[in-house]
Amino acid sequence: MKNILILGAGLSTPSLIKYLLDNSTEFGWKVILGDISVQLAEMRIQGHPNGKVIKFDIFNDEQRAEEIKNADIIISMLPARLHYLVVRTCLKFKKDLVTASYVSAEIRNFHEEARENGMIILNEIGLDPGIDHMSAMRIIDNIKNFGGILKAFRSSTGGLVAPRYDNNPWNYKFTWNPRNVVIAGQGGAQFISYGSYKHVPYHKVFTRLQKIFIDGYGEFEVYPNRDSLKYRSEYGIDDIPTMFRGTIRKPGFSKTWNALVQAGVTDDSYIVENSDNLTYNKFINSFLRHKNGKSVEEKFAEYTGLEPDSFDMYKLRWLGLFEAEKIGLKNATPAQILQKRLEEKWKLEPEDKDMIVMQHRFEYEMNGLEHTLVSSMVVEGKDSVHTAMAQTVGLPVAIAAKKILLGEISLTGVHIPTKKMIYEPVLKELEKYGIAFKEQKS
Amino acid sequence: MKNILILGAGLSTPSLIKYLLDNSTEFGWKVILGDISVQLAEMRIQGHPNGKVIKFDIFNDEQRAEEIKNADIIISMLPARLHYLVVRTCLKFKKDLVTASYVSAEIRNFHEEARENGMIILNEIGLDPGIDHMSAMRIIDNIKNFGGILKAFRSSTGGLVAPRYDNNPWNYKFTWNPRNVVIAGQGGAQFISYGSYKHVPYHKVFTRLQKIFIDGYGEFEVYPNRDSLKYRSEYGIDDIPTMFRGTIRKPGFSKTWNALVQAGVTDDSYIVENSDNLTYNKFINSFLRHKNGKSVEEKFAEYTGLEPDSFDMYKLRWLGLFEAEKIGLKNATPAQILQKRLEEKWKLEPEDKDMIVMQHRFEYEMNGLEHTLVSSMVVEGKDSVHTAMAQTVGLPVAIAAKKILLGEISLTGVHIPTKKMIYEPVLKELEKYGIAFKEQKS
Repeated sequence: MKNILILGAGLSTPSLIKYLLDNSTEFGWKVILGDISVQLAEMRIQGHPNGKVIKFDIFNDEQRAEEIKNADIIISMLPARLHYLVVRTCLKFKKDLVTASYVSAEIRNFHEEARENGMIILNEIGLDPGIDHMSAMRIIDNIKNFGGILKAFRSSTGGLVAPRYDNNPWNYKFTWNPRNVVIAGQGGAQFISYGSYKHVPYHKVFTRLQKIFIDGYGEFEVYPNRDSLKYRSEYGIDDIPTMFRGTIRKPGFSKTWNALVQAGVTDDSYIVENSDNLTYNKFINSFLRHKNGKSVEEKFAEYTGLEPDSFDMYKLRWLGLFEAEKIGLKNATPAQILQKRLEEKWKLEPEDKDMIVMQHRFEYEMNGLEHTLVSSMVVEGKDSVHTAMAQTVGLPVAIAAKKILLGEISLTGVHIPTKKMIYEPVLKELEKYGIAFKEQKS
Repeated sequence: MKNILILGAGLSTPSLIKYLLDNSTEFGWKVILGDISVQLAEMRIQGHPNGKVIKFDIFNDEQRAEEIKNADIIISMLPARLHYLVVRTCLKFKKDLVTASYVSAEIRNFHEEARENGMIILNEIGLDPGIDHMSAMRIIDNIKNFGGILKAFRSSTGGLVAPRYDNNPWNYKFTWNPRNVVIAGQGGAQFISYGSYKHVPYHKVFTRLQKIFIDGYGEFEVYPNRDSLKYRSEYGIDDIPTMFRGTIRKPGFSKTWNALVQAGVTDDSYIVENSDNLTYNKFINSFLRHKNGKSVEEKFAEYTGLEPDSFDMYKLRWLGLFEAEKIGLKNATPAQILQKRLEEKWKLEPEDKDMIVMQHRFEYEMNGLEHTLVSSMVVEGKDSVHTAMAQTVGLPVAIAAKKILLGEISLTGVHIPTKKMIYEPVLKELEKYGIAFKEQKS
């Protein structure tokens, strides 16, 4: 019997846990799920005979050591900032670790120690980062093997609401951490385009849009992500003249959102005076010029350059941002106030289903000819537990953990899934779960 | 004989030093000027019999103690971040201290200790902060004394080039620290307008302009300063419905500057790759969309919303920002690259003279009637040493130091010049030097 220790039972774990439990009898696994909330963990295990729930406190050194010592592999789904605690204990007891989080500089430094211990610390094997790395590397390696020269790589991902449930004027609902959506882009963005580095300040991010099309789903828009450059070396494409990573939204989202950015409504750097008793109308007015005889709505349209009778202004009215309704949130930043309102309006209802969209576009030369390859993935949620996000984040983690336990992934050190030994079997098995890419060449 | 110790012989000190030397025989003063550069200090003292130059190293604890112990008053014109060293030694030997710098929280904490020692630490008695406080408080106290109720206070200051030498299309040259000009506004701005707090993000600061007029000098524009609210309590006007502080430029400056802000050229948060060998043309291109067949200049106009044949675009061409000339600056941020170019183009020539402009606008009710009082000051530089900046920063410091030595300012503790005992005699004497306000009531 092998013990799999899963730390954290949050929203991204149901499909991960179900996969491991479904496979537990065949492979002889005990699945131990630790969370600070026993109730939440029990909801995930649902009394499965090979499952076990423990109340787990990451800051309890003794418990952490004891549980990790007794496990054969550890899967950490805790917030990324807590991973250093898990990693250190895993190193001490020479236990393999899998996470879906970005590799921090601190964790990268453990590479040699992990190698010497003969263990793997596999990170960034969720959706984004995760499936994006694996699906891109499969194509990049393939193009290189056939002697192709990569000229451009554009990669975009978005968490959206599935078309049938996409019934609000923003074509958007929160399917993941709302705060990340509200402050998205605040560091600006950088990418490389036809050999020239491009830098985009925050207040221009939502104007630098690209269009993509996905068969059966139509048109989407993409705004640039913070840093499109850092994966060039990880992917072995340091000299690529065009590389762009972006976030996918339905058309029209970014233009209206940009009006909020322009006015300063997404600012997270100061506390709004008296935010508790202020109305949304007065809150929005705090960004606008004083003008006698003009409504806040009229002033907002003028200040942000939107047409007063545009669909964009309708979307903002629909959010209730001009209403004389109390905010009721103490000591809040503008971003926090906006988030509160959006959480009311962009709520994913229990019967709603989410959708993950990912598309890579490669341009390359081969045998003197220019080619374009577009590879697209769409995953819809099954229900409000096994969401598209839970499937696409959790299943790659689960499959990778299985492959490590079975010895099919035998790398040691700190890794992300850019190596064929990892991405090939994981992508292959993901296809069985409907997580698959469709390719179009031209 | 009284010893006056001046620390720092920088650009803001010539008029300060001249004033003290000019008065030294009458009052029996010895003026000791300490700077890390003896040559610079000697240039300021010019062999005056009552002057003495010392090579002074602020980090030499022994020397600092010795010199401060032997002085009757200390004037520190060192960078503000070094003042805590000076203050501590002054407290130890119970010596009065005058500076033109903002009071830090650390220095404010010495208030009680200074009071117990029977000494004064007088700060913010230069131009801005300094003359702004004093001239505003004189009017605010006056309005209050006559039973007036203040409704609005707008205060603006600018360092510009004197009209006769104002011969470039930006109507601007660097008369002070260039870096502060390049990164001005980056924290955004806040003020209060008709009872409503107003917040302006950086990318909107140079669009939130006010117009002012000064007799004999014409029209100016004002963009909002970072924090207009913090002086409400210092000035005893906590409940004022409108309070605005701004920076003065000649008309048209802000609109063109805003195009640089919009594109991201003033960004100081990242290093531009290969900034040494890059040309200005390619540097500007790094902010713009890739478009075949369009010049960088055409793309810049389109991206920032300027008309291609506008005067604004001429001003940007005049800066040489679209030229294929190497930048030649290693590991530089966009702001540093822009500063290098501006320092070449906005250079104050030796024969040029600078100009300080300050205007307060008060609106108040008295005896049921509404009044407006506009108080304006313009000071032009005498030459390239006794600039308007050197006079307006240095003379208030010098006069205050004299008044303290003569016992006419007898306050103890940490102060800024908002009290009548300070501002009245200082403002009165400044008038003899042509640093005077003209008032217009309506």
